[in-house]
Amino acid sequence: MDDRAAVLEANDAFYRAFTRRDLTGMRDVWAGTPSDVCIHPGWEIQRGWHAIRSAWAKIFMGGMEMRFELGEVTVDVWGDVARIVLVENIWSGREFIGRVAATKLLLRTPAGWRVTLHHGSPIAQEAQEPEPDLSDMN
Amino acid sequence: MDDRAAVLEANDAFYRAFTRRDLTGMRDVWAGTPSDVCIHPGWEIQRGWHAIRSAWAKIFMGGMEMRFELGEVTVDVWGDVARIVLVENIWSGREFIGRVAATKLLLRTPAGWRVTLHHGSPIAQEAQEPEPDLSDMN
Repeated sequence: MDDRAAVLEANDAFYRAFTRRDLTGMRDVWAGTPSDVCIHPGWEIQRGWHAIRSAWAKIFMGGMEMRFELGEVTVDVWGDVARIVLVENIWSGREFIGRVAATKLLLRTPAGWRVTLHHGSPIAQEAQEPEPDLSDMN
Repeated sequence: MDDRAAVLEANDAFYRAFTRRDLTGMRDVWAGTPSDVCIHPGWEIQRGWHAIRSAWAKIFMGGMEMRFELGEVTVDVWGDVARIVLVENIWSGREFIGRVAATKLLLRTPAGWRVTLHHGSPIAQEAQEPEPDLSDMN
């Protein structure tokens, strides 16, 4: 498998674990080093797998069912470092929750590509979609 | 100069250009390639120097004077790729504007380390500082 395909496979595993609220699956995706970094939308910076794990546990216990439609996905590989940039279109059931711009960094390890950074930030509502036109209803 | 010092110098140049609203200085900091990525807090993903430049021009024309106190700064270097993660404490004159979590990626080029990613996201207010205790004033 080429680098790009392997990096995208790791990305799929990340969102599979996220959707299933699967902490073990999420752990398997990460490098698991002290220099791992995770920034959830609006959150403080989490550093090191211990803190990152706690943050995922909190999110997964929050219990909101989330589904991710990924858009604008690009992959760049520089030697043993890969970057993914994409937009998460987040749904909970039939409700559209919002859009998040996400950057990931992955490192090539003996066990394959592993995430060492996830940075997600909300895309402001006004940039998302025009207000529905309700003029017909007046 | 070692890699870490050179990467931090590029980071300083970034914030110097930001503070001075210096578009030429900002351009000199960036790699200037089609795969450059810039995500400002709340904004859509900007890709490629052309789009990134327009976004900076808009911000600089907005005219808000900003001063950055950087905290929690870490640098990691993997071969020809470097990552900086930090918190921007943003002031406008004496007014505290807010905190932004920022990730940067830099590439080693013949001209030195150049930024190819800047991702900034607001840290939510409730995570920033406790409400002032006004109980004495009641």
